[in-house]
Amino acid sequence: MNEPIVEPISYEDASAAVKAVYDDILETRGIKFVPNFWRTIAHDPKLLARTWSSLKEIMHPGALDTLTKEMVAVAVSVTNGCEYCIRSHTASARKLGMTDDMLGELMSVVGMFNETNRLANGYQVEPDSVFFRKRSD
Amino acid sequence: MNEPIVEPISYEDASAAVKAVYDDILETRGIKFVPNFWRTIAHDPKLLARTWSSLKEIMHPGALDTLTKEMVAVAVSVTNGCEYCIRSHTASARKLGMTDDMLGELMSVVGMFNETNRLANGYQVEPDSVFFRKRSD
Amino acid sequence: MNEPIVEPISYEDASAAVKAVYDDILETRGIKFVPNFWRTIAHDPKLLARTWSSLKEIMHPGALDTLTKEMVAVAVSVTNGCEYCIRSHTASARKLGMTDDMLGELMSVVGMFNETNRLANGYQVEPDSVFFRKRSD
Amino acid sequence: MNEPIVEPISYEDASAAVKAVYDDILETRGIKFVPNFWRTIAHDPKLLARTWSSLKEIMHPGALDTLTKEMVAVAVSVTNGCEYCIRSHTASARKLGMTDDMLGELMSVVGMFNETNRLANGYQVEPDSVFFRKRSD
Amino acid sequence: MNEPIVEPISYEDASAAVKAVYDDILETRGIKFVPNFWRTIAHDPKLLARTWSSLKEIMHPGALDTLTKEMVAVAVSVTNGCEYCIRSHTASARKLGMTDDMLGELMSVVGMFNETNRLANGYQVEPDSVFFRKRSD
Amino acid sequence: MNEPIVEPISYEDASAAVKAVYDDILETRGIKFVPNFWRTIAHDPKLLARTWSSLKEIMHPGALDTLTKEMVAVAVSVTNGCEYCIRSHTASARKLGMTDDMLGELMSVVGMFNETNRLANGYQVEPDSVFFRKRSD
Repeated sequence: MNEPIVEPISYEDASAAVKAVYDDILETRGIKFVPNFWRTIAHDPKLLARTWSSLKEIMHPGALDTLTKEMVAVAVSVTNGCEYCIRSHTASARKLGMTDDMLGELMSVVGMFNETNRLANGYQVEPDSVFFRKRSD
Repeated sequence: MNEPIVEPISYEDASAAVKAVYDDILETRGIKFVPNFWRTIAHDPKLLARTWSSLKEIMHPGALDTLTKEMVAVAVSVTNGCEYCIRSHTASARKLGMTDDMLGELMSVVGMFNETNRLANGYQVEPDSVFFRKRSD
Repeated sequence: MNEPIVEPISYEDASAAVKAVYDDILETRGIKFVPNFWRTIAHDPKLLARTWSSLKEIMHPGALDTLTKEMVAVAVSVTNGCEYCIRSHTASARKLGMTDDMLGELMSVVGMFNETNRLANGYQVEPDSVFFRKRSD
Repeated sequence: MNEPIVEPISYEDASAAVKAVYDDILETRGIKFVPNFWRTIAHDPKLLARTWSSLKEIMHPGALDTLTKEMVAVAVSVTNGCEYCIRSHTASARKLGMTDDMLGELMSVVGMFNETNRLANGYQVEPDSVFFRKRSD
Repeated sequence: MNEPIVEPISYEDASAAVKAVYDDILETRGIKFVPNFWRTIAHDPKLLARTWSSLKEIMHPGALDTLTKEMVAVAVSVTNGCEYCIRSHTASARKLGMTDDMLGELMSVVGMFNETNRLANGYQVEPDSVFFRKRSD
Repeated sequence: MNEPIVEPISYEDASAAVKAVYDDILETRGIKFVPNFWRTIAHDPKLLARTWSSLKEIMHPGALDTLTKEMVAVAVSVTNGCEYCIRSHTASARKLGMTDDMLGELMSVVGMFNETNRLANGYQVEPDSVFFRKRSD
C-alpha cells in the first residue's frame, strides 16, 4: 500500500465543516465510506467544499446523463494516466450500468484518438475550412 | 493559414490504393470532400489504410452509440490540446446531434476531471480498497 | 518496493567522477544520503554531471527565491503526474518552509489551472489582443 | 485571427446572470474589458459562475501571495502547452510585478523539471524512503 | 502486485479467435508467454486483433529498423509516463541490442527535448520561416 | 505571424556573451541564421548558454547517431504537441537524411504507442515479471 502526501482525515477526526461535506458525499452517492480522495483534500476545507460542490453540479443529469459523464471522466483519466481516477471513475461508471463491452469500446475510442491526435499534431494538419463557422478559403 | 509538414494529396493526384480509401471515406461519412487529415497521412498509404480501417471499426455503433464515441473523442482531444482534433470531432458530434448545452456540459466534465486528476496525483491519493476486485485491507 | 530500470550506483561503487558529483550533492543540499534519482542517472556520468550542474545553477536564489522555485517544481510534477518528482519536491519545499496551508493552496492553484487550460483549449479561445505587445485589432 | 468553437458573448448580449459575473470580473480585476475566456464559457452560465467563483477564492492572497499563484499558473500552462493560458497568466503576473528576470528563471525551472520528470519516469526511479512519512526500509 | 481493471485472459480460457492471436504473438515475437498487455485487451477480441495486427505492420523493418522503432516507443512511453510501456519497450529494445550506453543517451535526448518543448511553448517562439516550405516573410 | 512572449534578440543587439553562443550555434550547425528559439531564450543569457551547451553534448554522435537522436526529438515533440519543436526537429532530421518514408514510419510508431500507452494505463495492466530484473512471481 502506497502512502499519500498527507494523511487522509477520518470521519471521527473531521471538523464540523468537513463532516458536513462528508455527510453530503455519503448521502448523495449512497455509499458507506468516504473515499480517500475526499478525505485527503479535506486538509484544505475550502478545497474540499469547493471541489465537492462543483462536482455535484457538474455530475447532475442535464443535457448529458450521468453515465455518459462518468465515461468521459474515465476517458480524461486514461489520457492523463491517473491511476486513482481511472479506478474510481471506472467503478462509478460500472455502478451506473457500464458493461464490459462498453468499457472495451470506451478504451478503443480513447486509445484510437490518442493516436490520431499525434498524427494530426505530428503532420501539423491544417483544420479544414468547413470546421470553421466563418472561414471560406 | 498554416502549413502542414507534408502537402496533402488531392483526389486527382492519389494512387489507386489511396483513391479507394478516399472513396470509402466519402461514402461512409456522407461528405463531399476528403478532410485534410486523411489527405495528409495518405503520404504513407499503409498508415492511411490502417488508420481508416481501425477508425471505421471503432466508430461503428456497438455497445456505445456513435455520438457518445464522438464526444469521448472530443474529451481526449481537449485533454491533449490538439486543435485539428477538437475542431473536427466537435463538428462531427454536432452533426450527430450534440447541442450547445451538451457541449457546455461536456467541457465542464473534461475541465473538472483534469482538475481532480491533478489533485489525486498531487496528493498521491491511495485508491480505496473497494475499487479493487480482490483486495481487502 | 518497485524496481528501477537500472540499478542505482552506491557511493562505494561509484567512479571518481561520479563520486565527485555525489559529494557536491551531499554538501550543497546538506543531506546525508545520495537520493535514488542521482544514483540512477549516474549510469551515464555525463547525464549526471550535466543535470546536477544545471539544477544547481537554476535553483540558486536569484530573481526568485528557492522555495518559490521548489513549489513551481511541485506544480510541474503534479501536472505531469511524476510520483518520484512529486514526493521529492514536496519534501524539499517543506524543508524550505512550505506549510500544509501553502501546500493546500498550491494544489488548489495547480488543479484549477489544469481545468481552465482545458476550457481554453476546448473552446479554442482566441487570446485577447491586449495580451500581445504589438497587435491592435 | 483564429476562431473559437462558440462565439464569445458580448456584454450587451449577455443575460442578467451572465452580466452580473462580467461586472464582478471587471471590478475584481480592475480591467476595462471582459477577456475572451469568460465571454466564451458564458455559453454555459453555470460553468461561468462556478469557474469565476472558484478562481476568485483560489487566487485570493492566503498562505501564498497572488503573484506566486499567477507564476504557478504560468508553470502549469507552459507544461500543458496552452497558448491562451500562457499569454493571459504571463500578462497577469507581469501586472503583479513579475520582471523579465523573474520570467526567465520561471521558464528555466519549468523547463528543467519537465526534463527531470522524464528522467525519473524513464528510469522508474524508486522514491527514497526518506520521502515517506511512515516507511523505513 | 497491483491489479488490472479486468482479469487477464489465460491461454487456456481464451476463445479460438483470441487463441489465434496469442499463437501469432508467441511465434512472431519468439517468446514463451503472452504478455499481460495482450491478455488484458483480449476482453475485447476486436481490440486485440486490430491492435496486434497494426503493431505487427508498424514494427516490421522498413525505412526504419526495428530497434530504432522500439527506442522511439521508449521515448513516447517515457514522455507519457506509462510504466508498463516503459518496462516492456525497454526490455524489447534491449533484446534487439540496445546497450546501457544507448539507453543513457536515449534518456538524455528524451529529457532534453521535454525541457526545450516547454521553453518553446513558454515563450511562444515563432517557427522560423525556413522551417516552412512555402512561407517567405 | 504570431508573437512571442519576449522579443527575439538580434545578432546586432546581442551582448558579447550572447554573441559568442550565437557564433557557436552558427558554426556548429553550419547555418546562416540564429533560429528564433535561441534568440528568444537569449533574454536569460544563462539559460541560453546552459541549454546550448547541454544540447551540443547530447546531440553529439555517441552510442546513438545524430539522425536517430533527431527522430527521437521529433517523437517527443509530437507526443507533447509542440509546433515549433515539431517543425524544427523535422527540418533537422530531414537535413540529416530522413526521407518521407522514414517520416511516415516514425509518425506511425509515435501514433501507435500513444494509443497503446492509453490501453496499458486504462486497463492498469500489471508489468509482466519478466520485465523486472529481480522479481520472480
